[in-house]
Amino acid sequence: MLFKNITVLDENYQIKNNMYVATDGRTISYVGQDRPAGDTGREYDGRGRLLMPGFYNSHAHSPMALMRGYGENLALQDWLNKKIFPFEDKLDSNAVYWGTLLSYAESLRFGIVSSTEMYYFMDDMVRAAADSGIKANMSRAIVNFDDGDVWQLSSMKEMKRTFEEYHNIYDGRIKMDVSIHGEYTSNHLAVEAVADYARTAGARVHVHVSETKSEHEECKERHGGKTPVMYFSQLGLFDVPATAAHCVWIEGDDFDILKEKGVTVAVNPVSNMKLASGVCNVPELLKRGINTAIGTDSTASNNSLNFIEEMKCFAIAPKVHFGDPQVVSPDQTIYAATRAGALGQGRDDCGIIRAGAAADLIVLDISGPHMHPVHDLKNNLVYSASGSDVVLTMVDGKVLYDGGEFTTIDLEKTIFEAQKATDKILAKL
Amino acid sequence: MLFKNITVLDENYQIKNNMYVATDGRTISYVGQDRPAGDTGREYDGRGRLLMPGFYNSHAHSPMALMRGYGENLALQDWLNKKIFPFEDKLDSNAVYWGTLLSYAESLRFGIVSSTEMYYFMDDMVRAAADSGIKANMSRAIVNFDDGDVWQLSSMKEMKRTFEEYHNIYDGRIKMDVSIHGEYTSNHLAVEAVADYARTAGARVHVHVSETKSEHEECKERHGGKTPVMYFSQLGLFDVPATAAHCVWIEGDDFDILKEKGVTVAVNPVSNMKLASGVCNVPELLKRGINTAIGTDSTASNNSLNFIEEMKCFAIAPKVHFGDPQVVSPDQTIYAATRAGALGQGRDDCGIIRAGAAADLIVLDISGPHMHPVHDLKNNLVYSASGSDVVLTMVDGKVLYDGGEFTTIDLEKTIFEAQKATDKILAKL
Repeated sequence: MLFKNITVLDENYQIKNNMYVATDGRTISYVGQDRPAGDTGREYDGRGRLLMPGFYNSHAHSPMALMRGYGENLALQDWLNKKIFPFEDKLDSNAVYWGTLLSYAESLRFGIVSSTEMYYFMDDMVRAAADSGIKANMSRAIVNFDDGDVWQLSSMKEMKRTFEEYHNIYDGRIKMDVSIHGEYTSNHLAVEAVADYARTAGARVHVHVSETKSEHEECKERHGGKTPVMYFSQLGLFDVPATAAHCVWIEGDDFDILKEKGVTVAVNPVSNMKLASGVCNVPELLKRGINTAIGTDSTASNNSLNFIEEMKCFAIAPKVHFGDPQVVSPDQTIYAATRAGALGQGRDDCGIIRAGAAADLIVLDISGPHMHPVHDLKNNLVYSASGSDVVLTMVDGKVLYDGGEFTTIDLEKTIFEAQKATDKILAKL
Repeated sequence: MLFKNITVLDENYQIKNNMYVATDGRTISYVGQDRPAGDTGREYDGRGRLLMPGFYNSHAHSPMALMRGYGENLALQDWLNKKIFPFEDKLDSNAVYWGTLLSYAESLRFGIVSSTEMYYFMDDMVRAAADSGIKANMSRAIVNFDDGDVWQLSSMKEMKRTFEEYHNIYDGRIKMDVSIHGEYTSNHLAVEAVADYARTAGARVHVHVSETKSEHEECKERHGGKTPVMYFSQLGLFDVPATAAHCVWIEGDDFDILKEKGVTVAVNPVSNMKLASGVCNVPELLKRGINTAIGTDSTASNNSLNFIEEMKCFAIAPKVHFGDPQVVSPDQTIYAATRAGALGQGRDDCGIIRAGAAADLIVLDISGPHMHPVHDLKNNLVYSASGSDVVLTMVDGKVLYDGGEFTTIDLEKTIFEAQKATDKILAKL
């Protein structure tokens, strides 16, 4: 495919007009000002459009789309205990598949090319990712308070079986990570077992860290002053590449540990605002050079996968919280939404436009009134664009969304089946 | 015009499916479940669509669209002194007209049907509003530190002349309010003169109040402990219907005064976050029953007029700031974006869908993946919708935006002229 006469966010984060970008199979084969030689397949007229790397969602629970808008304005514990947990208790394979596929339709619509997941029903989530064509890092969340052999847990068996079965299928499009849900939902036996398995199998780790103040403080009470970051680090969980989601309440030495261990922090600005969890100290993460990516969390707490909105909140929530409009620049925000997310998923050839990189690309319509005038297009991209300005989404060189149409997903059927599965669960509650 | 088979947010904030809504001239002539008799003109198929009142933007500086993305990540004083003020110093009639028209194209695109304005170059702003078909409450910002006769100021003369010339033209579509820019930018003589004029002429007042902490605290230092709300109230500025923009740092008796005087508070969540001004105490405003509306502020500090994004931030910024996910409900948010804004503009027949009300209506495409499943459509509207889901905007019964096309604005020309005017100013700096 050949994108011609298109504006490009290049590998140096510079805006270049009237460029040619060609893809060949799964990769970008050419980036330049002149038309490349040879047959490049379909030609895409890029006038009034921006080509940039797709978004890498670094923290998601995609099946929870079924709980979008289910119980609003509740205190966190009421929301969880009266709404989310009872609903989740009724989930089945069919519901998880359609909920995940619905999330992937929404993801592709808003320019997300890859999603770091933590949930259960791995087979069904993998099937949805496979069918949609999206990239995903899946992980089975482990929760355990039992003192027995953790390898007797069905969740640990599922983790091991699905890692062996699905890791790096479709040429690495789908990866299997491993996951401890959080410090407050497991004992040390489960943490150690997951850390051991990750080291042995060569898996990446995904874990919730210090999302709420109570989670953070209660960890310190339980573990002689150790924060979740310190606790996990000492149990070896960060000895493999890891993604720590939220990190709202991290403090002191936590920053040094995250930096030293090369942990990716997945910041979830909208979910953290909506659930009143707090505001992550993104300025400090960036100052320390910690790999800082952006996640949506689930649509039960967001309630959308609008990644442009997520970028804007990533940039402006810290400004007001820390009282400084100078923190978190558009460049830092775009990097976090793209390259940092790809690196956090172990996708070193992704999230950047250059020859040889994966063709995970999105096109934005930049012709609208809200994108003018142009002083600096990157400022408009972060602060003025609308989620729906994304008009094309390509993963591994394959166009999955193009001007309102999905090439791999039957949207009408997916919405119908997701609503049906939701209604079936509600009828049981 | 007849909207048929459409989902409607009715006057009781209930969602009703398969409804008929007809307009006749400038008003809604029929709302019901059965098809109305007689010829109703164009028929609009509402399947998969929501009809709701348009958005009333309660605080805007529309010409500043020309400064969108001009200077980002600067401290407030640097941004103002090095970027905004020098640019504004070079504005002329032509630039203001095209900047305002560009903002109105963006407004209509995002479902804004009316805008409360404060700026200068009133004639050019009125011309842009007139040409676009949007509703507007214009006001000439008064700034004065001189001790002489304030009526010798050209700004005061412009205020009086344009009030007499334009107030309630086009059957009230355009209204002229009067404005003091802020406590920190005028002496008491100007405040008193504007208050007097408003009382005599029957004008509404528009004023910046306690946007930043320093503005609020310095006012108290200057005026023996009086807050801006107390100061303005004692000078009679709130003896007429008034809109107080921002109110981020109001405290104590300020709430009682605003309630007692019937002042509308225009909350600007995105601008306040981006400029690091603070978070308005919306929960307390709502608890007191103060008329609480939503504004975008200018696109130089926002940097968009995406009112659905503004609604979401109106609802979630206070949650995290006050540490309570239960504050600011979807119903309260939708009311603030529509009916409260209309009432704050003195448009008592606007912002609500019922027979006899003004036909200021918008249609949203609710068929996208991000709007499903539906537990409560109002939750999805506030938390999941995207700005661009607005597909039709009607003001006073006239369709001004319909599926990407503007009926009154030549978008290409407007973007071209706005960019040209911007470049001309930049060349002088």
